[in-house]
Amino acid sequence: MDFSIRAANLEDCKDIARMILELAEYEKVSEHVKVTQKDLEQDGFSKNPFFHGIVAEVPEAQRTKDGHVKVGYALYFLSYSSWKGRCVYMEDLYVMPQFRGKGIGKALMSKVAQLGMAAGCTQLNFTVLDWNKASLDFYMAQGCSDVTAALGYHVMRCEGEELERLAQP
Amino acid sequence: MDFSIRAANLEDCKDIARMILELAEYEKVSEHVKVTQKDLEQDGFSKNPFFHGIVAEVPEAQRTKDGHVKVGYALYFLSYSSWKGRCVYMEDLYVMPQFRGKGIGKALMSKVAQLGMAAGCTQLNFTVLDWNKASLDFYMAQGCSDVTAALGYHVMRCEGEELERLAQP
Repeated sequence: MDFSIRAANLEDCKDIARMILELAEYEKVSEHVKVTQKDLEQDGFSKNPFFHGIVAEVPEAQRTKDGHVKVGYALYFLSYSSWKGRCVYMEDLYVMPQFRGKGIGKALMSKVAQLGMAAGCTQLNFTVLDWNKASLDFYMAQGCSDVTAALGYHVMRCEGEELERLAQP
Repeated sequence: MDFSIRAANLEDCKDIARMILELAEYEKVSEHVKVTQKDLEQDGFSKNPFFHGIVAEVPEAQRTKDGHVKVGYALYFLSYSSWKGRCVYMEDLYVMPQFRGKGIGKALMSKVAQLGMAAGCTQLNFTVLDWNKASLDFYMAQGCSDVTAALGYHVMRCEGEELERLAQP
C-alpha cells in the first residue's frame, strides 16, 4: 500500500484530534480525553512546543468512506534519563483499524526513532496497556523490552486536587 | 532544619552528577549510569535544554563530613499527554540519606509541582521501583497514585542495537 510519513503541521491538528479520540475509544477511555484541536495547535505549534507529531497519509484513491487520507500519527517529545542522557518519548502511536498490517505503524515508529537519534537520543520510551496484547506483540517484534515486567518500574501520577495540594509551599 | 530550594545552574552539575550516582547505588544499578557532569552541563544548560533541575542546599554549619552543602536535587522536564495536555515529568528526586525525614524531599517535589503548574501542566508523572516501599509510601502520602497498578500501564523501551535497527528506514 502507498503511504507517506511526514512531519505534522498546524493543519493536521483536526485529524490528530480525531485520531486521539479513536485511540482512546480503542483503549476504552474516551471520557478521559480533554485535549482539543485548539490545544494541539497551541501546545504543539507555537514557540517551545510541548510535543512534535508525524502523520501517515494515503493517496486520495485510498481515502476512507468518511473522506480521510490522514490515517495514522505519532506524537513524541524529547526527554531525559539521568542514567542514559537524551531520550525520546513516544506519547502515541496510532493507525486507523482498516489500515493496519500494512507497515504504517512500523514506519511511524521507525521515524520517531530516527528523529530521536538525530537529536542525540539513545533510548526510546513509551507505555502500553498490559491487556493490549496486539500492541505488546507488535512492540516486542520491534525489539522493545517491557521495563515494568523486567525491572519493576511503576508509573506514578499526581493530578487534580492532589497536585494543587502538593504545589502548596 | 534550615534548607533552601533553588533552580540549579551550571555550577551545580558536579554535585548533581555525584548525587545521580548515589541514587543509582541506592537503586542498585550504578553500573548503568552513563551520564557525566559534562553531559549534564551540555544537556541542561544550553539552548533548548533537555531537562531542568532544582537543588536543596543546607547552611555551611550543617555540611556533610565530605564538605557537601548541596544535599538533594530533582530533575524534571515538560511533557505532553494526548488526553490531558501539558504535563511535567519528574525524572529524579533524591535527598542524601542523612538529610531525610526533614521535609527536603517533599519541598523539592512541591517545587516541581509548582513549576509545572506555572507552565500550564495539570499532571505530574514519574516512575518508582516496586520494591522501593519507602519511596512508594512517601509518594502515596503526597497524594500520588500508582497508574501501573491501577490501570495496567507498562513502561516500554528500545535502545542500543534494537533502536538502531528500528530507525532503519
